[in-house]
Amino acid sequence: MVSIRLPKGFLANGIHCGLKKKRKDLSLFYSEKACRCAALFTTNAVKAAPVILGQKLLKKNPAIRAILVNSGNANCMTGKRGLDDAKKMARKTAAALNIPESTVLVSSTGIIGKPMQTGPIMSGMSKLVRGLSPDGLIHAAEGIMTTDRFYKVSTRRFVIGDKKVAMVGVAKGAGMVNPNMATLLGYILTDADISKKALDKALSMSNETSFNSITVDGDMSTNDTVALLANGEAGNRSIKGKGRDFDIFLNNLNGVMLDLAKMIVRDGEGATKFFEVKVRGARTKAEAKKAADAIANSILMKCAVLGGDPNWGRVASSIGASGIRFNPDLMDVKLDGVMFFKKGKVVSLKKGKVRSVFKKKNADIEVNLHLGTGEAVVYTCDISKKYITLNSFYTT
Amino acid sequence: MVSIRLPKGFLANGIHCGLKKKRKDLSLFYSEKACRCAALFTTNAVKAAPVILGQKLLKKNPAIRAILVNSGNANCMTGKRGLDDAKKMARKTAAALNIPESTVLVSSTGIIGKPMQTGPIMSGMSKLVRGLSPDGLIHAAEGIMTTDRFYKVSTRRFVIGDKKVAMVGVAKGAGMVNPNMATLLGYILTDADISKKALDKALSMSNETSFNSITVDGDMSTNDTVALLANGEAGNRSIKGKGRDFDIFLNNLNGVMLDLAKMIVRDGEGATKFFEVKVRGARTKAEAKKAADAIANSILMKCAVLGGDPNWGRVASSIGASGIRFNPDLMDVKLDGVMFFKKGKVVSLKKGKVRSVFKKKNADIEVNLHLGTGEAVVYTCDISKKYITLNSFYTT
Repeated sequence: MVSIRLPKGFLANGIHCGLKKKRKDLSLFYSEKACRCAALFTTNAVKAAPVILGQKLLKKNPAIRAILVNSGNANCMTGKRGLDDAKKMARKTAAALNIPESTVLVSSTGIIGKPMQTGPIMSGMSKLVRGLSPDGLIHAAEGIMTTDRFYKVSTRRFVIGDKKVAMVGVAKGAGMVNPNMATLLGYILTDADISKKALDKALSMSNETSFNSITVDGDMSTNDTVALLANGEAGNRSIKGKGRDFDIFLNNLNGVMLDLAKMIVRDGEGATKFFEVKVRGARTKAEAKKAADAIANSILMKCAVLGGDPNWGRVASSIGASGIRFNPDLMDVKLDGVMFFKKGKVVSLKKGKVRSVFKKKNADIEVNLHLGTGEAVVYTCDISKKYITLNSFYTT
Repeated sequence: MVSIRLPKGFLANGIHCGLKKKRKDLSLFYSEKACRCAALFTTNAVKAAPVILGQKLLKKNPAIRAILVNSGNANCMTGKRGLDDAKKMARKTAAALNIPESTVLVSSTGIIGKPMQTGPIMSGMSKLVRGLSPDGLIHAAEGIMTTDRFYKVSTRRFVIGDKKVAMVGVAKGAGMVNPNMATLLGYILTDADISKKALDKALSMSNETSFNSITVDGDMSTNDTVALLANGEAGNRSIKGKGRDFDIFLNNLNGVMLDLAKMIVRDGEGATKFFEVKVRGARTKAEAKKAADAIANSILMKCAVLGGDPNWGRVASSIGASGIRFNPDLMDVKLDGVMFFKKGKVVSLKKGKVRSVFKKKNADIEVNLHLGTGEAVVYTCDISKKYITLNSFYTT
């Protein structure tokens, strides 16, 4: 098995504790030194217990030392008992690592509305902690998977001043991936020294062009969490909220998060093709995003991509239904680089050219509205019969 | 073949003219006397040529005598030529019937972005007109079908004062059916005498609880049109915008339009189950509608209904993502009449009871938010592998 070295001062592990039948279901990320932490949570009005707890904890801007994540149960819509269970998990982790409970974040993913079985977590904790290792990232990435077909990891190494800095990210999320905060769970660990303000700013910015720019089925999870931890062990001069150092940091964070986001889309439940929707020339960036989301979330468009049907009419119709202002007579539509519709007119094309579109694993839809400078890119996947099977005959 | 008598003074017909390979593709509705007309059109920013033309025509409040409808080509995104073609179709109809061009409405449905072939329509016109008959409704209903598996017709007979009044409706629409104005095409014909104001009011009201309350895939068509024609041939005292006569008329119109709307959902491309989503106790009617739409349009929820999985967690998550304000701790969720979640708590149920849910052709989701008196019902269908096939390998 490949192993990836964690940034300095971080350890991780993932084990099977018994919440799921066979696969790993419990992961731990640990830092030897206190970390600054930035985090974003789901905007769904229904929030899982660990999300409620995490939001409350992070308001106090604590020094984070560990993140415990279980898969197999989302601990969501589980009422007061769910909150107690999440606290119990944090307390157990703190005790096993000999750190304060207030430095432990907890996440859960899996089935909604079933009480947590904390038994397997409690009894698995010592094995989980014993196995912590600077090479444990992939085990941890596996422990957070649910319907994911592969684990998702991305890394970067870069230099700030004369110091080498490392960054790794892991994520999970296949179905239930939505336009706002598409990953169910994502964790980025870095040994950079960076101010809390800069950390928050970088996470928001990167999130916008990565997890917030992907969509699989338009549904929004109750458990979405992305957290960025920085422990300062690289010993670099501290990165502030602007300037060249910040730009380098942001650039690498963008890379890690976009890698993870694209992996999530590629792993969309039952997806066969990945596609990129680019909208240019909108009146504003927000309108470009709205149009791109409408195209990417249209079930009919997903079907067209699956079937290799260059149905630019569905592109136009989706934009029309999105509610943004545009003029079809000015619009261009390109599919896989071939112009099908130009300034409101159908382009006449040779049959062979038409038939070549949407035949590869990666598809490309580009629209120019010729109204302004607003631009957005959204990444998504097609929908297949397998998606329907996976989500229909999945037992709660 | 069953035949349905049209209301007094109306004739109809449907033929195969050659836009499609074999099936009927051209329909005509004709009234011997001038009709008052109320109509609603798509809110998609991309509008087909006949929609643009129809909206313009109806602004002048003309006396309508005929509606010509073709299937096989939507005449949408066809630029100036499309407008000319739609006008040509109206002109030809007017000439064949010897009525003014300004009394003819035109509709089209089918593929977007291909120029109309008006040839077959021009040459089929005399046959179409020759075959007009008071028993021609079903032929006309067949001529407007695209991917529909069955024609959609509903009728009502009622009494205003001492006069018998008749009303018939036809519709088409399978995929591309969306939350706003879900039918692609719907025409209601009545021999009632009713004021223009009352006609407009009745159509808007009925549309809200029928075509605007159904959804198949959340996509919005560029061609949606619903028109209500009244020719006054019943000789009843004229119906005004309020009072008992109006209520009787509205009640019957509601019946016809809801019948048609439900038939459209039942015919949702590849659908195997019909389901009703009722949201009660929302703060407002609009919030109830928003929540019900979010549940009905969730691909994951559609999959759960298909698979017979009583996944109430997806109901809660959809409402959470809809953006309305609600409190999960107050919420009840019933599936097929079985309470799964009550006042924020999971109800413990016997396995047999859980397994009986979503097993029939009709499914039922009812949510009570316990926050106010807002209420809405939305009708929809599940999504199946067949839907994916139909929409993926459909050639443009």
